[in-house]
Amino acid sequence: MAGAKVRLAGWCRGLLQGPAAVGLRPTSEVCRFKRGDYAQLSNSHLSHFERLLDRGRVITDEAELDAYNVDWFKTLKGSAKVVLKPRSTEEVSAILKYCYDENLAVVPQGGNTGVLGGATPVFDEVILSTSLMNKIIKINDIPGSIVCEAGCVLETLNSALAEHGLIMPHDLGAKGSCQIGGNISTNAGGLRLLRYGSLQANTLGLVAVKADGTILDCMNTLKKDNTGYHLKHLFIGSEGTLGVVTEVAVQCPPRPQSVTMAFLGMSSFEQALQTFRLARTMLSEILSSCEVMDAASLRLTTDTLRLRSPIPEHAFYLLIEVAGSNQGHDEDKLNTFLETAMSQGSTSDGLVTAEPSKMKDLWQLRERIPEALFKNSYAYMYDISLPHDDYYNIVPVLRERLQGSEAFAVTGFGHLGDGNLHLNICSPQFSPELLAQLEPFVFEWINERGGSVSAEHGIGFTKTQFLKYSKSEAAIRTMRQVKSLMDPRGILNPYKVLPQE
Amino acid sequence: MAGAKVRLAGWCRGLLQGPAAVGLRPTSEVCRFKRGDYAQLSNSHLSHFERLLDRGRVITDEAELDAYNVDWFKTLKGSAKVVLKPRSTEEVSAILKYCYDENLAVVPQGGNTGVLGGATPVFDEVILSTSLMNKIIKINDIPGSIVCEAGCVLETLNSALAEHGLIMPHDLGAKGSCQIGGNISTNAGGLRLLRYGSLQANTLGLVAVKADGTILDCMNTLKKDNTGYHLKHLFIGSEGTLGVVTEVAVQCPPRPQSVTMAFLGMSSFEQALQTFRLARTMLSEILSSCEVMDAASLRLTTDTLRLRSPIPEHAFYLLIEVAGSNQGHDEDKLNTFLETAMSQGSTSDGLVTAEPSKMKDLWQLRERIPEALFKNSYAYMYDISLPHDDYYNIVPVLRERLQGSEAFAVTGFGHLGDGNLHLNICSPQFSPELLAQLEPFVFEWINERGGSVSAEHGIGFTKTQFLKYSKSEAAIRTMRQVKSLMDPRGILNPYKVLPQE
Repeated sequence: MAGAKVRLAGWCRGLLQGPAAVGLRPTSEVCRFKRGDYAQLSNSHLSHFERLLDRGRVITDEAELDAYNVDWFKTLKGSAKVVLKPRSTEEVSAILKYCYDENLAVVPQGGNTGVLGGATPVFDEVILSTSLMNKIIKINDIPGSIVCEAGCVLETLNSALAEHGLIMPHDLGAKGSCQIGGNISTNAGGLRLLRYGSLQANTLGLVAVKADGTILDCMNTLKKDNTGYHLKHLFIGSEGTLGVVTEVAVQCPPRPQSVTMAFLGMSSFEQALQTFRLARTMLSEILSSCEVMDAASLRLTTDTLRLRSPIPEHAFYLLIEVAGSNQGHDEDKLNTFLETAMSQGSTSDGLVTAEPSKMKDLWQLRERIPEALFKNSYAYMYDISLPHDDYYNIVPVLRERLQGSEAFAVTGFGHLGDGNLHLNICSPQFSPELLAQLEPFVFEWINERGGSVSAEHGIGFTKTQFLKYSKSEAAIRTMRQVKSLMDPRGILNPYKVLPQE
Repeated sequence: MAGAKVRLAGWCRGLLQGPAAVGLRPTSEVCRFKRGDYAQLSNSHLSHFERLLDRGRVITDEAELDAYNVDWFKTLKGSAKVVLKPRSTEEVSAILKYCYDENLAVVPQGGNTGVLGGATPVFDEVILSTSLMNKIIKINDIPGSIVCEAGCVLETLNSALAEHGLIMPHDLGAKGSCQIGGNISTNAGGLRLLRYGSLQANTLGLVAVKADGTILDCMNTLKKDNTGYHLKHLFIGSEGTLGVVTEVAVQCPPRPQSVTMAFLGMSSFEQALQTFRLARTMLSEILSSCEVMDAASLRLTTDTLRLRSPIPEHAFYLLIEVAGSNQGHDEDKLNTFLETAMSQGSTSDGLVTAEPSKMKDLWQLRERIPEALFKNSYAYMYDISLPHDDYYNIVPVLRERLQGSEAFAVTGFGHLGDGNLHLNICSPQFSPELLAQLEPFVFEWINERGGSVSAEHGIGFTKTQFLKYSKSEAAIRTMRQVKSLMDPRGILNPYKVLPQE
């Protein structure tokens, strides 16, 4: 999705006109933010870093810096003057201790694939890149785990696990670039969460370095360890604001022997929900994905990208994947499930396939929706979670609300199994009036229904002022206290996660 | 296991002679501990509590207090003079605010089924019992979750879920008494962890009250919510020292339609491990338990309790349970697995059954081992986790080390699938010399191999001085800082989890 035009926070909307029209202006010039009271990088600092690492791992060349300063969506641009590439936990510790003593702000960065600006500098923070910390330390066949450094790329880990008959418990679109340290620091979700759970569930242990350079060894390869407070969870999903994750251990499920898919059509969301409920019961332990698309999402995708739906138009579609240890059993279960869904009337049409090329085609219909959304329009995107009863209701509500506006489409698709909806509003170009109709309305609507304003993307830089719609005042106050405890000088990833006071 | 004779920490060994010989002496008299500088309970405090709650929920009768003052193993006895029974989060908040202001120490208590003294007072702490907070608030069929108050009994929740086709993700021996708030506060493990993961993985949200009475609402029924720090994890497994959990939301898997078991014999631990590895691959998504017993454990159980093993004597036995959505498929998989294990030579003998009465008999062989251990001997018990390569090695090491000692048996059994070993040393009676041969040797041995000195039972009161064998100095220092942050006056469950400084 690099280069796509996306919606940013309203208070930062100056950025919206930036990239497309006149090239990317620095975030610090566009956003109304005050730089923290940190030291400016000096030659003496640089000399120290070169003594700590060596010249090749202290990057100051401006052209080279761009890849680290600019975010995945190419809508934010930091002004860092140096990128440091440590090779070990000890080097990370030495860097942070020095930065802490010198009052230099630091942004930890993995594969830089975050979509909310959590991994790019806002001003001139020092970038600490984990990309050279890419060693696999150990793969345990029983009961299945991997221990590695934070800079390992997700796809590399998954490939290394193949010969051990294991897989990583999570799978993301960015798997070719994203790093496991970043995944864990953002509690990344993705396609396998329905089956295997979150990274909070699958991270067995980690080593993190605190802002002052203290190495906190919470490494563990055990499934059970109830000794003291479970500190590792503080670093999972806190987006590098409480410490820099340098090594991790992740539990890895057995690699499925068979994968089979079904593509189903139905005439109402209620029926989609009934079908999902049936899948939970009948497919139970082999259900690995349950994705939903509304008619508008699929039509836009097939029309824009010249793809073909394998079944006639319906109001809703479910893409169901099962994965297990016995192809015959899995197909048997899936066929019986489909027959039941058709005879009960919750599904009108559908097909089952285990042919890899056909399964790939089916996944394209789902995975390329964002590409279609961006192709000929400006897209306001919301990545939200809602209780299933309210999962799709926001779409008709917005269609009603936006009648007469510039919006020409309101669509919804997403991980139905996880209650995670991708809500999208398309208009010919960015419109402040349309944005004002959307926000804070959407967030208030979600808040009233106990939903989450960020299901899997985190808070990063661009969503800090929306945190209050999903977390109570007392909780945010406690978060601030935890931040002060772990990083009293606030040098680690400033301006992120917690709203400015 | 109530009333059993069990090993306590060496520094508290005076307790060991207590219960059997002369009745239970108060922990405060037996242990060399200094009472914290807390206020003494006064009549004015009691009057205030009676105004807050009402007389029936402020218990001061000494005979009635015993059930709350004495722990599950009946080896610890607190000297609390009052038990408070709030009915709501708001009442818990009012109690804690008052106790915080008055500097009264408080022990939160659920079903009082903990085995390390985490839920009983050491001195005269006020007992805050959650037992009247037992409302089920909501069951969500899709995707499967339950929201309830902390005092709900695990078995009650599991029964309520049955008609929704769901189960609780964890199952414990104490399910008839233990409460969900206590389960979560201790991150309780149990029999289903191999399949469904820990309570850190399955707790969707919770409400906790901090020491000063602040209500921290981390309630959530969503599977995905990446907004800010994941504070709920601080309360899971911290044994009531950071806050009192008052409401919880737990995700609930579909109730299996079929359960089948196998009981296998093999001639070495290496073969047991090979068989488990094969089960992970061939039974994969339906594997729900993999328990191991050595010959000494089974022989002791069958001899002492007059039970019968369904197969001839072997060096090791595996009890494997599969649970799924299709009986035919599951039996098919289990039979194919057993044939492969026999033909590969990793299993010498075995049987498969889906008959409920026979499955119950098989479970008895495993579940009644502790009863057999206690029946005619004194048992030193260790609940530990180890990487699978080292899982059983401690048993022969100890047999060698203890030759010529009073110990007449060293046995090992446990949750092989989770790497969780129950190590037991039996002697005719308690012997300080034998204890000195065991400790700190066992903990050092575990520490050197990256194991955990408490797999599922927590630290509680009796294991605080062993925390250092599984957690680094920096980690323990950070834990102390977190404790100070959440409970600056240290009124919540003092003397627990963290070692005395």
